[in-house]
Amino acid sequence: MADAVSALAVGWPETRADARAKAEGREPYAADLYPEGVLWAGAVRPGARLGIAHGRIQRIGTAAAEALPGVLKVLTAKDVPGTNRQGIVHKDMPVLADGKIRYVGDPVALVIATSREELEEAIRLVEVDIEPLPAVYDPDTALADGAPKVHEERAGNILAAAGIRVGGGADALAQCDAVVEGVFETPVQAHGFLETENGVACREADGSLTITASTQAPFRDRLEIGHALGVPFEHIRVIAPCLGGGFGGKDGATVQCLLALAALNTGGRPVKMQWSREENLLAGYRRHACRIEYRLGAMRDGRLHAVHCRLVYDTGAYAHLGGEVMALGMEHAGGPYRIPHVRIEGKCVYTNNPVAGAMRAFGVAQATFAFESMMDVLAAKLGADPLELRRQNALRPGDTNCAGVVLENSVGIGGCLELIAGHPHWTGRAAWKAAAPPGKRRGVGLASVFNAAGYGANVRDAAIAKVELTADGRILVYNAVADMGQGNASAFVQMAGHILAQDASRVEVRQPDTAAAYPSGSSSASRTTFTFGNALIAACTQLKARLINRAGLLLFVDDDTALELVPGKVVHAPSRRETALAQLASFMRPEERCCLGEFVAPLCRDTAGAGNGFFVGFPHVIFSYGAHLARVEADLATGAITAVDYVAATDGGRVINPVMFEQQVHGGVAQGLGYALMEDLATRQGQVLATDFASYPMPGALDLPDIVSLACESEERTGPFGMKGIGEVAMNGPLPAVANALADACGVRLWRAPLTPERVWQALDQAAGQARESAA
Amino acid sequence: MADAVSALAVGWPETRADARAKAEGREPYAADLYPEGVLWAGAVRPGARLGIAHGRIQRIGTAAAEALPGVLKVLTAKDVPGTNRQGIVHKDMPVLADGKIRYVGDPVALVIATSREELEEAIRLVEVDIEPLPAVYDPDTALADGAPKVHEERAGNILAAAGIRVGGGADALAQCDAVVEGVFETPVQAHGFLETENGVACREADGSLTITASTQAPFRDRLEIGHALGVPFEHIRVIAPCLGGGFGGKDGATVQCLLALAALNTGGRPVKMQWSREENLLAGYRRHACRIEYRLGAMRDGRLHAVHCRLVYDTGAYAHLGGEVMALGMEHAGGPYRIPHVRIEGKCVYTNNPVAGAMRAFGVAQATFAFESMMDVLAAKLGADPLELRRQNALRPGDTNCAGVVLENSVGIGGCLELIAGHPHWTGRAAWKAAAPPGKRRGVGLASVFNAAGYGANVRDAAIAKVELTADGRILVYNAVADMGQGNASAFVQMAGHILAQDASRVEVRQPDTAAAYPSGSSSASRTTFTFGNALIAACTQLKARLINRAGLLLFVDDDTALELVPGKVVHAPSRRETALAQLASFMRPEERCCLGEFVAPLCRDTAGAGNGFFVGFPHVIFSYGAHLARVEADLATGAITAVDYVAATDGGRVINPVMFEQQVHGGVAQGLGYALMEDLATRQGQVLATDFASYPMPGALDLPDIVSLACESEERTGPFGMKGIGEVAMNGPLPAVANALADACGVRLWRAPLTPERVWQALDQAAGQARESAA
Repeated sequence: MADAVSALAVGWPETRADARAKAEGREPYAADLYPEGVLWAGAVRPGARLGIAHGRIQRIGTAAAEALPGVLKVLTAKDVPGTNRQGIVHKDMPVLADGKIRYVGDPVALVIATSREELEEAIRLVEVDIEPLPAVYDPDTALADGAPKVHEERAGNILAAAGIRVGGGADALAQCDAVVEGVFETPVQAHGFLETENGVACREADGSLTITASTQAPFRDRLEIGHALGVPFEHIRVIAPCLGGGFGGKDGATVQCLLALAALNTGGRPVKMQWSREENLLAGYRRHACRIEYRLGAMRDGRLHAVHCRLVYDTGAYAHLGGEVMALGMEHAGGPYRIPHVRIEGKCVYTNNPVAGAMRAFGVAQATFAFESMMDVLAAKLGADPLELRRQNALRPGDTNCAGVVLENSVGIGGCLELIAGHPHWTGRAAWKAAAPPGKRRGVGLASVFNAAGYGANVRDAAIAKVELTADGRILVYNAVADMGQGNASAFVQMAGHILAQDASRVEVRQPDTAAAYPSGSSSASRTTFTFGNALIAACTQLKARLINRAGLLLFVDDDTALELVPGKVVHAPSRRETALAQLASFMRPEERCCLGEFVAPLCRDTAGAGNGFFVGFPHVIFSYGAHLARVEADLATGAITAVDYVAATDGGRVINPVMFEQQVHGGVAQGLGYALMEDLATRQGQVLATDFASYPMPGALDLPDIVSLACESEERTGPFGMKGIGEVAMNGPLPAVANALADACGVRLWRAPLTPERVWQALDQAAGQARESAA
Repeated sequence: MADAVSALAVGWPETRADARAKAEGREPYAADLYPEGVLWAGAVRPGARLGIAHGRIQRIGTAAAEALPGVLKVLTAKDVPGTNRQGIVHKDMPVLADGKIRYVGDPVALVIATSREELEEAIRLVEVDIEPLPAVYDPDTALADGAPKVHEERAGNILAAAGIRVGGGADALAQCDAVVEGVFETPVQAHGFLETENGVACREADGSLTITASTQAPFRDRLEIGHALGVPFEHIRVIAPCLGGGFGGKDGATVQCLLALAALNTGGRPVKMQWSREENLLAGYRRHACRIEYRLGAMRDGRLHAVHCRLVYDTGAYAHLGGEVMALGMEHAGGPYRIPHVRIEGKCVYTNNPVAGAMRAFGVAQATFAFESMMDVLAAKLGADPLELRRQNALRPGDTNCAGVVLENSVGIGGCLELIAGHPHWTGRAAWKAAAPPGKRRGVGLASVFNAAGYGANVRDAAIAKVELTADGRILVYNAVADMGQGNASAFVQMAGHILAQDASRVEVRQPDTAAAYPSGSSSASRTTFTFGNALIAACTQLKARLINRAGLLLFVDDDTALELVPGKVVHAPSRRETALAQLASFMRPEERCCLGEFVAPLCRDTAGAGNGFFVGFPHVIFSYGAHLARVEADLATGAITAVDYVAATDGGRVINPVMFEQQVHGGVAQGLGYALMEDLATRQGQVLATDFASYPMPGALDLPDIVSLACESEERTGPFGMKGIGEVAMNGPLPAVANALADACGVRLWRAPLTPERVWQALDQAAGQARESAA
């Protein structure tokens, strides 16, 4: 009789390992931590209160706050023992502002109190005098001659500037039969995670620091804290429980250095910091606003021939990953198409706006809006079918992409477009559009998408996985890349169970802890399942071989190939003997029960000189692809657009778990629809206008259409079980697909996102006016 | 400038890692251990004293001994807490005899005293009354109907009986153009190691036992002790320092269980046991005496066609590895030749002689004497050149050997014979023989040899190696297979240094300790460098990859392929940065710094039913080969034979270390010449006649000829760096080569070894008599 339990299987819709704990509210997030005797820390951010985004700090009056009962300490820049600078690539952001503030969220003091109420009262009592300085609130102004400098020590406000040139570059536009052009603007988007930035820190008796935080990069956090505060990184332990959302917003220092600074000043008492939603919207990272100029040229037969593109990203007051966001956007600015002549220019500019940083589809969502809009404009100009134009030009393996990279990995854009081409929403579009209700117009819009995976060149992109046979015979995976909710930890359980032939009840995962797991990079760049997964396969494969070997030793068999690992045991069919994993474990030393696996991601070494001016993160070699189809209704009276339904075909290589694959696509499309239709974290003179989810609306479940996810499976030879990460790619589609659908519905095109009712109505009105004028 | 130090290199004559320590007397052998407060234990073996080899124990009087000052305890069988039985395959040997003694060395009591002198006095004072029983002293008698039984519980005195049949078996002899036959007898040989059986044991505070012993099988010792004394094996630690020789004589329990029993009775005080040479010759293991009947048939053109062989081994009073010795002898009884029809019958028989066991060329040395003698007899009968006959029939890859095994591994017999054929000692033999001094005859003799490596089928033949980057950045190999002096530990240093690119000063080896190393089988069967070496390669390869990976992490390089491991550090040539191994180690956890490697030896699964009656150890798949050439002078007046010089061509796959390779060959030839010319550990009525190296002469360095070792290198694909073990193969050649040379010199052939002057003289005298008779 077969075993009653089945081993976990890759490719099967296994239940998420964290489903029950999360559904029952038992999953311990960092925000749930309230250690005995915990103190509270909070930052004083006077820019908002004073209405100043850029100014010189004249005085910080801490006496009133310090006099408040329950206030332990008020720390300022002079209390920071290290460099007082943080930043992933460029360390330009102070832990506590020294000298001046560069944006409204800059903290000038850190208050430690015994309760949250006392903390908030004390923060209010800290008096800060700031002399306003001339400020810059948009890249154009910031780039003008003589513009005020955000960072005095720099030559100007340019953080990064780079170019890509393939073939004849922009000159080749002159050879084209048709050229279209446009200028696009994309908004600032908030990550909008449920769990705001938070953590708990404590100085241990041995002087080391332990920090539990909602973070996407626990291992890097150690380096950030070490650099900023002058503490050896080996003396810092960072624990990263499951996150209540991240999306890039917790990739980089938020609470970490402030909390560590607080913990150095509490005499060993634990201290907690939790940002409010207002603080999150003020001082948290956000998506870069971007201005994009585009010229796209093709031959009469539809072959794309040349593209010229200029992207300007507003990074705000600090670098964070601005240069890398720009680089990735540039790398995708030619779309997933064969274009022999490419010229892409990028700039990333400091302003006195809040700090932009990493966010799902890192610089790419902006560029995709532009190029996929241009594709439809071009199709119209050529009289071509927009889907056919995309199929005709879709990248294939062996092609050179717009960054000069010869594609040696899997390329599924063609397959994704085929899925859309055959979908009834596409084939039946005419009838569907004709059936629009009164006062509404229906339209169908496409977008091709792609998104690189991994850090790209000149950055170590690697993982070290650890898996252990526990003393009681279970399998324990030491996850080293934080699970933001995407479910990578669950994928690791599934992979380990698959390789080690164990069922769900016998595989556990421990969330990242720098004291137990190994440096494996951040949870970002669609890399975690790919990179850590590959390392985990190595570790599990080794552990499997070891368990078989030790069972052979224990059972004294001469030929290990007759042994089989099954749930809970190893069996020797020829002799009908077996050994339980628990028994095996009892004969193994701790060093034997643990296996480590390493992986270093593949790199592109040669782009034939296509890129110049890039620092790190250019180029990439592995991309996920997708083709999206939005069906929308536009209300002619209000300008409101409703996405009626949505189809996303996705190439993520082989699918590890179909349900989790679909969840990722759904999440990306949902966040993309928010970006398309409503989200705009606007500032005025550097001041953030939104303070909560009422003033920063995002789509809820009831606002979303039916989303159909189709997998276009292919084998990515470098991926674990052939997979590629799809955490970001789906984010890129909704804005251009909806913009294209709007154009299809009403004949008007919006060049600026989000596509709010007001903007749509204005465009409709303007078009109607033009129509009247032409008619007159 | 190149590094001043060079990494160790496989294939290079690196200095033995233990050379200096041994030359300076610093290498700590077990016999060198004298812990503070050590007690002495010794066995009472009354058989010799009473002249009884088989008898019922009537009384053991311990009072007089116990009354002696300095005597702690006198233990007898009733004090043994476990099964009181030991034995590698068959557990038939008591730790302390209960009921009866079966040979003169059987111990009936164990005395523990505070000094060696008191111990010896007390042993003398133990009174033992034994009623003699009818005994059997040779296999023929033991196999006769109604013979006294050595083990009453058995049906008779047969320990093992098996057969091999390939093709038409013995019947095919009838088809041969020429058939030769002979009956051979081989003597008992002592291992003659310098360091006699010894060890120190102690019961630790936690109740566990620690035993440091001169042993070839520390991991198996735990099981033996555990079984015999009822102690869980996990509570037993065995440490095996370098041995002062082993040759198989320390493969199996000698002092181990007696020492452990003593340690259970000393209240935590350490206790030492060291056998005298007399006790070693009485109670130690020895080579099986063997009687071999041979019929070998060939076709007129020299093709071997059929062989029929019967081998009877005398295992003495206990099984030890008797059945396996017989099996291996049988597996080699057809020589390294293609013979389509084979019939080999084997028996291993209990007698009341001392216990035979494992010894270098385990059962094979006996058979080789017979078949290589027969080859020369056959050559003479066919009028063929003995070398040509061997070349013509030599096994080639793909052939089926005499055990029905299709040879899928390397087969170098042909190459070895070529080396001999071209050697001046062979090509110039006529002139050399003609120049014999007056009163002497010169002759040249050949022998083809081969010897299986590994345990063979139905026994787990595996190893687990551990290698560590120490906290101070050195490489530490945890050897798990005892180094008897053959230098395997040094080969492991060389392999580890080669793979990890470290020089001799940076690689250390720790000798086997069951608490630190992993079960890897015994140091026997030409397997240690092969089997543990393969496991070590796996461990070192993993450690190398890990060091590169961690250096990549520390240096933050994006492409680990640009990193190189060199002595003491990892360097990144493109950036001219480097990290010392000591620095790397400081960032690594202990679990990261240690790598384990596993290996399970290849097995033969199919002999097309050639064998029957085998228990374990039949058949094998990997063999080393050799061709030997002895030049001898026989003194016609005294019968004394002198080996003038000796050439041994050996196929051991690729050579790891040419000097150590040669040392192994020299050692095997030396021990083989002792076996050929003088060694005979004779018994009379089960009583051992020799008591020391005066009464058991062995060749010393001055007795030995020049030995030329030629390596016939080939790649053994399953071997570490392509090697095969050669610890035994050379042992097989001298006896038949010298016997053949004697026949070549004087025309007389001896069928019984050793070829003592007395036997040679008798044979010459007899031949002269026959010549006179024929002349008359």
